[in-house]
Amino acid sequence: MTRPFIVGVMGGGVADDQQQSDAYALGKHIARQGWVLLNGGRDAGVMAASAKGAREEGGLTIGILPDSTAKHAAKHIQIPIVTGMGNARNCINILSSDVVVACPGGMGTLSEIALAAKCQKPIILLKNKMAKSLASFLPAGRLFYADSPLEVIDHIRAYISNLE
Amino acid sequence: MTRPFIVGVMGGGVADDQQQSDAYALGKHIARQGWVLLNGGRDAGVMAASAKGAREEGGLTIGILPDSTAKHAAKHIQIPIVTGMGNARNCINILSSDVVVACPGGMGTLSEIALAAKCQKPIILLKNKMAKSLASFLPAGRLFYADSPLEVIDHIRAYISNLE
Amino acid sequence: MTRPFIVGVMGGGVADDQQQSDAYALGKHIARQGWVLLNGGRDAGVMAASAKGAREEGGLTIGILPDSTAKHAAKHIQIPIVTGMGNARNCINILSSDVVVACPGGMGTLSEIALAAKCQKPIILLKNKMAKSLASFLPAGRLFYADSPLEVIDHIRAYISNLE
Amino acid sequence: MTRPFIVGVMGGGVADDQQQSDAYALGKHIARQGWVLLNGGRDAGVMAASAKGAREEGGLTIGILPDSTAKHAAKHIQIPIVTGMGNARNCINILSSDVVVACPGGMGTLSEIALAAKCQKPIILLKNKMAKSLASFLPAGRLFYADSPLEVIDHIRAYISNLE
Repeated sequence: MTRPFIVGVMGGGVADDQQQSDAYALGKHIARQGWVLLNGGRDAGVMAASAKGAREEGGLTIGILPDSTAKHAAKHIQIPIVTGMGNARNCINILSSDVVVACPGGMGTLSEIALAAKCQKPIILLKNKMAKSLASFLPAGRLFYADSPLEVIDHIRAYISNLE
Repeated sequence: MTRPFIVGVMGGGVADDQQQSDAYALGKHIARQGWVLLNGGRDAGVMAASAKGAREEGGLTIGILPDSTAKHAAKHIQIPIVTGMGNARNCINILSSDVVVACPGGMGTLSEIALAAKCQKPIILLKNKMAKSLASFLPAGRLFYADSPLEVIDHIRAYISNLE
Repeated sequence: MTRPFIVGVMGGGVADDQQQSDAYALGKHIARQGWVLLNGGRDAGVMAASAKGAREEGGLTIGILPDSTAKHAAKHIQIPIVTGMGNARNCINILSSDVVVACPGGMGTLSEIALAAKCQKPIILLKNKMAKSLASFLPAGRLFYADSPLEVIDHIRAYISNLE
Repeated sequence: MTRPFIVGVMGGGVADDQQQSDAYALGKHIARQGWVLLNGGRDAGVMAASAKGAREEGGLTIGILPDSTAKHAAKHIQIPIVTGMGNARNCINILSSDVVVACPGGMGTLSEIALAAKCQKPIILLKNKMAKSLASFLPAGRLFYADSPLEVIDHIRAYISNLE
């Protein structure tokens, strides 16, 4: 059995219209590729929007929730993983993703970028200015910049090709 | 959207032929009902056997791994959730399951039965003698006994009917 | 440097007068031996009583809290370790203890006994009837029974002597 | 009872001579103030050096370890808290600290700065250039810069005075 490829989409619980629209489009593109979308599962911002996009294309959506119940999971998260561990679940987000996409976000997203770098996961920054200002500290070679959801997909496809 | 029902199958990493055969049959029955199978994800005992059964019927299998990589996940786990948290992942197994089935197992399984009782999850004991000796301490009302995989399914169906 | 010996005291958040009195006495005896007391840190039952006993004898008390703040720690916990991880912190209680004492308790305590057995920690059961009914399943050799706080101390002293 | 004030010292497992010397001096100053030093507990870099400084002044040192045993704890960690949770323990470091000092470090330290900002903990950056480049994204008001260990102490004393 070959496992489906898992794309972790990190990003803010607070997101403006453009950021939500980008996350929604990213979710759609991920599902169209046959990839699984994994995110932090909350019913807010990038999490809710990317799950909606993926589900509308029939994709599988996994949400790693900080809470101890699934009550507040985003509507389009199909499989809520209930951790009851607050921010410690950020580590699980990263470890469970084959590749990490960092949309704009706050301190939670920054912690995930840092953990992804530490765990040597490939990271694609989608319009994430905060991480750009960190560029000289982040590991080269596994760090990519994208200006649109489609560019994210191109980077992931290139990364997968190199694996094969 | 209605989320799929998630059945957590707990049980030993060490399991004899009969126990593996029961876990395999249980996995098959769970998938035939359209339910998702969630377990501890390791390539051993009840975890490997129940995932194999479910996958052979086309079911979705989620494994909550104790390790920090998916390298040692059971072959038939489709979605490995990589926690890097050792036994602390047992809590996630329980919190993420709509109902918990406890097959025969050791101390890890016992910790999961205890956590399931604490978190007020319905528990179905499949030939689990250890838990039977605890019966007077476990909460009545959400505790069920089964002598075969099919009986487990009957209990879950009855439980779901009561929810509706 | 030799590290101080750490005694983990597990037990119910709900405890009757006798159980609280035993936990209080146990805390006193642990501190008199120069050992550190570690427990689940909440302001209830065995946790609050054992911490009170230890502090009154000048002992060091560590509480591994399930919450994400120290606000609800027991008054006599000197060092609250704030995990924000709910029941997953039970694993930390066990892994951080050199020896585990299980006072009477509920399902949380049972999960800790199971984890202690899995992690091969020595376990001393103080009037814990639930665990007694499990005796045939628990590992012999590292499991001891005590009928009073002082007997617990005797078992720990014997265990330490064997280490040296 | 008033609890001792807990200072979390974050920083790299890899540290040059000057960085180790700063961490050692910082540990000494923290202990002289009667504060508890808490760090990541490993026998390396800023963790080992700050614990050594604090212990030599008779301070209490707590190490929140990523491993599942205390075998690899730094020598001068008096109380190893054994989490078995890898990088997820970074959350515990932050939640358990009354104030967070970030020495120079890598991605683990960056994740801790991000979590500290998210959890609204006061953060003092000691010669941490990476975080300086993030300054415009970090919350003002609880973020302080220090160029020497003694300046860190001044900032903490001022912070405590404001609390009273």
